[in-house]
Amino acid sequence: MATLTLAEAEAILAGARVKMEAMGVKLSVSIVDGRGDLIALARVDGASWRTPYISQGKAVASATWGLSSADMAARWSEPIFPGFMALQGGRFIPSQGALPIYKDGELVGAAGGSGGTPQEDEDAVRAGIEGAGLATEG
Amino acid sequence: MATLTLAEAEAILAGARVKMEAMGVKLSVSIVDGRGDLIALARVDGASWRTPYISQGKAVASATWGLSSADMAARWSEPIFPGFMALQGGRFIPSQGALPIYKDGELVGAAGGSGGTPQEDEDAVRAGIEGAGLATEG
Amino acid sequence: MATLTLAEAEAILAGARVKMEAMGVKLSVSIVDGRGDLIALARVDGASWRTPYISQGKAVASATWGLSSADMAARWSEPIFPGFMALQGGRFIPSQGALPIYKDGELVGAAGGSGGTPQEDEDAVRAGIEGAGLATEG
Amino acid sequence: MATLTLAEAEAILAGARVKMEAMGVKLSVSIVDGRGDLIALARVDGASWRTPYISQGKAVASATWGLSSADMAARWSEPIFPGFMALQGGRFIPSQGALPIYKDGELVGAAGGSGGTPQEDEDAVRAGIEGAGLATEG
Repeated sequence: MATLTLAEAEAILAGARVKMEAMGVKLSVSIVDGRGDLIALARVDGASWRTPYISQGKAVASATWGLSSADMAARWSEPIFPGFMALQGGRFIPSQGALPIYKDGELVGAAGGSGGTPQEDEDAVRAGIEGAGLATEG
Repeated sequence: MATLTLAEAEAILAGARVKMEAMGVKLSVSIVDGRGDLIALARVDGASWRTPYISQGKAVASATWGLSSADMAARWSEPIFPGFMALQGGRFIPSQGALPIYKDGELVGAAGGSGGTPQEDEDAVRAGIEGAGLATEG
Repeated sequence: MATLTLAEAEAILAGARVKMEAMGVKLSVSIVDGRGDLIALARVDGASWRTPYISQGKAVASATWGLSSADMAARWSEPIFPGFMALQGGRFIPSQGALPIYKDGELVGAAGGSGGTPQEDEDAVRAGIEGAGLATEG
Repeated sequence: MATLTLAEAEAILAGARVKMEAMGVKLSVSIVDGRGDLIALARVDGASWRTPYISQGKAVASATWGLSSADMAARWSEPIFPGFMALQGGRFIPSQGALPIYKDGELVGAAGGSGGTPQEDEDAVRAGIEGAGLATEG
């Protein structure tokens, strides 16, 4: 079973920061493993205290389903998602801004951003994941 | 008071597995008693970690009302259902995939599946319940 | 990374049942993976509704630390353990009756029992783990 | 009001990693602000999934009181501490391994470690804080 290393998670964070600076936004970015447990997190100076929680919640949702959290947002009316939000004590947020991470075709985790528009959050983590030589689809 | 035995629960699991293999899907199946407490659970190799939770949550919902969880999904906008979800810490999911189990006309529990489409989840547990000589309606 | 299969989990359940019958006790047994998520669970007819919860909680504790839950019971005065109990919504119980499962020296999960004395609970899961050709130490 | 920057948090993580490698242990380290919200977190390859939670919980406890979490451990019998543990959903752990961070005499956050002995956890974060030119006392 493939796993995401801390070095890879840090490369994703670094790439996401280059992208967020280019976009002129201040984000938190959370990287979780395939089970939704944190590997790395960074909150840029000036980003709100809410952003670590939101970025983690989006990443957990994305890793749990292996889908982008934007795709999951469309399914919020299904009770399964509020169910997981309760199960995870609020740290499960199916809203745009997180993407799953695949390595050799296997789901190994997810990266979530928060602090910009949902699209900027997603763009930042996509730049990080792809810049680290990893994929957002299996 | 009629009760569901472990032998019956295991027969349901066995029948659901035959059906899921025929459909080519990997599920978790949870069997609960009439109070919503687990009697038996099995997660097939390769099914996601989210599936034991979801199958249990659907089974709890189904057993609590004595209805299929698909019928309950249509009533999600009623505050009672988010209320039970909160009460059960997320382990109450009124979404298609679980069916109640009746024995001699009495509600004795429910079986829930997760890992396929909602219809496949329901088909698997229906095959299990009926194969064990039990009914899904009172 | 080694993982515990459903076939192995079912072999552990079967071995634990032989042992509990020999001891004349009625137990629930829960088998979880290395992250504490359920793979299989069986509650024997006549075991209380509390036993699935307790057996799962003990197994989660054992898998999280890779230790027997009896060894962890001695450390209950450390706040880390109540912390995990809160984090897991009560499904984390560092009390005797669960053992970790090792395969080729790697932690792959845990098995927990509930319904007898704490020693009987542990004896049943030990019989199951060892009978399945797996180890309780790394 | 003095604040801890992400650059300082990353310097603490870097210093803690040098120290943990010297000690031969694999830790997670969490850095939180004065309110207990995460600024940065890193889990070293091979550290258990439980360590991000524990390191965060210790750091939150330390930041909330401005004390080392070891000093707080002695006060666990006071109901205030289980109260904060409940308030924070388990992410408040008054056990040795976290130190507060002071800058120009002001409390600006805390750093917590998990994965070694409690003393090793504390030694790693102390090395990180002091190496970053910050203080562990006001």
